[in-house]
Amino acid sequence: MTQTTIDTVALTAELVRCPSVTPEEGGALLLLEGLLTQAGFACTRVDRNGTANLFARWGTKGHARSFGFNGHTDVVPIGVRADWTRDPFGGELDAGRVWGRGACDMKSGVAAFVAAAIDFVRDTPPDGAVILAITGDEEGPAQDGTIALLDWMRAEGEAMSACLVGEPTCPEQMGEMMKIGRRGSLNAVITARGRQGHAAYPHRAANPLPVLVRLLDRLAQHELDQGTDHFDPSTLALTTVDVGNDATNVIPATARAGLNIRFNDLHSGPSLTEWLHGMVQEESAGTGVALEVDIRVSGEAFLTPPGPLSDMVARAVEAECGLAPKLSTSGGTSDARFVKDHCPVVEFGLVGQSMHQVDEFAEIAHIEQLKRVYSRILQDYFA
Amino acid sequence: MTQTTIDTVALTAELVRCPSVTPEEGGALLLLEGLLTQAGFACTRVDRNGTANLFARWGTKGHARSFGFNGHTDVVPIGVRADWTRDPFGGELDAGRVWGRGACDMKSGVAAFVAAAIDFVRDTPPDGAVILAITGDEEGPAQDGTIALLDWMRAEGEAMSACLVGEPTCPEQMGEMMKIGRRGSLNAVITARGRQGHAAYPHRAANPLPVLVRLLDRLAQHELDQGTDHFDPSTLALTTVDVGNDATNVIPATARAGLNIRFNDLHSGPSLTEWLHGMVQEESAGTGVALEVDIRVSGEAFLTPPGPLSDMVARAVEAECGLAPKLSTSGGTSDARFVKDHCPVVEFGLVGQSMHQVDEFAEIAHIEQLKRVYSRILQDYFA
Ligand SMILES: [Zn+2]
Ligand SMILES: [Zn+2]
Repeated sequence: MTQTTIDTVALTAELVRCPSVTPEEGGALLLLEGLLTQAGFACTRVDRNGTANLFARWGTKGHARSFGFNGHTDVVPIGVRADWTRDPFGGELDAGRVWGRGACDMKSGVAAFVAAAIDFVRDTPPDGAVILAITGDEEGPAQDGTIALLDWMRAEGEAMSACLVGEPTCPEQMGEMMKIGRRGSLNAVITARGRQGHAAYPHRAANPLPVLVRLLDRLAQHELDQGTDHFDPSTLALTTVDVGNDATNVIPATARAGLNIRFNDLHSGPSLTEWLHGMVQEESAGTGVALEVDIRVSGEAFLTPPGPLSDMVARAVEAECGLAPKLSTSGGTSDARFVKDHCPVVEFGLVGQSMHQVDEFAEIAHIEQLKRVYSRILQDYFA
Repeated sequence: MTQTTIDTVALTAELVRCPSVTPEEGGALLLLEGLLTQAGFACTRVDRNGTANLFARWGTKGHARSFGFNGHTDVVPIGVRADWTRDPFGGELDAGRVWGRGACDMKSGVAAFVAAAIDFVRDTPPDGAVILAITGDEEGPAQDGTIALLDWMRAEGEAMSACLVGEPTCPEQMGEMMKIGRRGSLNAVITARGRQGHAAYPHRAANPLPVLVRLLDRLAQHELDQGTDHFDPSTLALTTVDVGNDATNVIPATARAGLNIRFNDLHSGPSLTEWLHGMVQEESAGTGVALEVDIRVSGEAFLTPPGPLSDMVARAVEAECGLAPKLSTSGGTSDARFVKDHCPVVEFGLVGQSMHQVDEFAEIAHIEQLKRVYSRILQDYFA
């Protein structure tokens, strides 16, 4: 086995130079596959429907002590090039930072766990396995990314006993927050269909709007819950209502509304779907207006309750960053929502302020800190 | 004074041949001015801002017994020419009908009262005045039509002591309905302005939609009244709600709604404006969402209570058509909403089924009946 030493910051910069805007692989996974193969990892490209994914394992397949890292190399588009003052794919090192799209979200996180894993298996080969599951689509539809990796692992008898997702988790200070779960997310589109008519004769029409606004008012007023020990209260946000009727003397035939629910573990996609269908039925009954609701659950709520895994990560963060991280379930969704069906999962990574912004960057000092946190976690896990 | 005999049906056809789509005069008022001048009427063109109007009086200016007719020669556009099976401006006489745009609404009505007035003053010159106030814009914005005529009359000391508007008033049978008033109409646009944000963090945004739908629900549920002896209940119709936000994870900054109120004489533009402003204030208070309401009153409700004028018209209708007309306040608006500030006003005219349609027509027999009704009214009024 060749001895390899990785410069985490240089690797981050090199990854930034791979233009891997979803769904482009951009050379990022190829680069990592080369490094990991050289370091003795068994690498498999788990591509599906045009999405590139990389699975890498050091150690015995199916070992009861298999620690995994999950992350993504794809990045969101740069937006308007002229808004950037740095080359979005330059990977420039300046002013103590690595600059470019993905520097923060999350090529630095991937570089940090790849470097930590390679160093760890070289210096203190563990009795167990270290697994890296890296996807090329977390920012896009994400149907053939981490899901494809997990599907393939299940089929192949590959398993992780615990997993850390390396997404940025800190609002402002390095080390202040880790994630032990996420709220779920549900989108609903409600369509109300009535019968068009003249505004002067409402009784001859079936106006969809009074029925729809009454339903929306009830939904918006409804308190889903008051939060739990680990979760904020669930929220329901009306996002749009549209009719597009410019004629002031015409009652429209159709109206449409959209809403988004972010829900904690007191709810689930199915429980909320049932609730919405019930409300829709109540409000449409006897009105002559038909209400249809189209529901998409983009992620269920999940929680890895505070315990050995979160304790271990928190200890490592506190040792390297000097802050005891808050165990949070806030924020949007991440691939942890898929991993949680496979094994206990938590998330820890950089300060996320610049993610998805122009002039995205990562502090060099934070990247090095992050690599040390990940190294400490591996040492602790296999101790 | 020259003796003139007018063929009402031929005059209707000749008027239809004048392409007087609002705001075009199309030769229609010129034609009438010629006939009326020849018959001894003092004619004045009361044009304003490009709208042509014709005022004609036989008899003494300001006489206490001045009976007026009001009507319009302008017509709505023909729509798609290919949808017509008759020449829209041909004034064709076929199958017992006069065909073309305006045949029904309301060149036949104008022809009928012009013919009736000319015959009447020739055969039985009254002690009083007969006034014809004919506008070239009833179908358009109507700001420089009958309003201009009434403004000019007030300034000149011209006055009507009673007025009949010759719009089509009968739903199906000639003679079955006359109008003694109209509901008012008010349009409101409500704009709700909050603060944009991410759907996952509703507390950091100020979502305009919950505030707006709550207000709209209250407005739609509100019973304005239960109707009166002469009026149907007032109605409020939500006509549109629009946001145009396609991003399911974004709370929008702004939402807009439109509504139309048709109100009877228990309300007025100002009273409803005050009510709407009060509701808007109640619902926006303390929400962080600003609600603005932009109100246009296109006509106040009015009623000429059943009495001498409506009795006289009803008698004439029953004598000529064999039906006692229903005294109604239904339907849209007409220029009677302006005339009512000047003198008592009622409306009677043809069967309106074909108005604003392709292949518009008027039954020749109905046109002749209508002229006889108007003649009888003049005889009765000045008897
Ligand atoms: Zn990410
Ligand atoms: Zn008309």
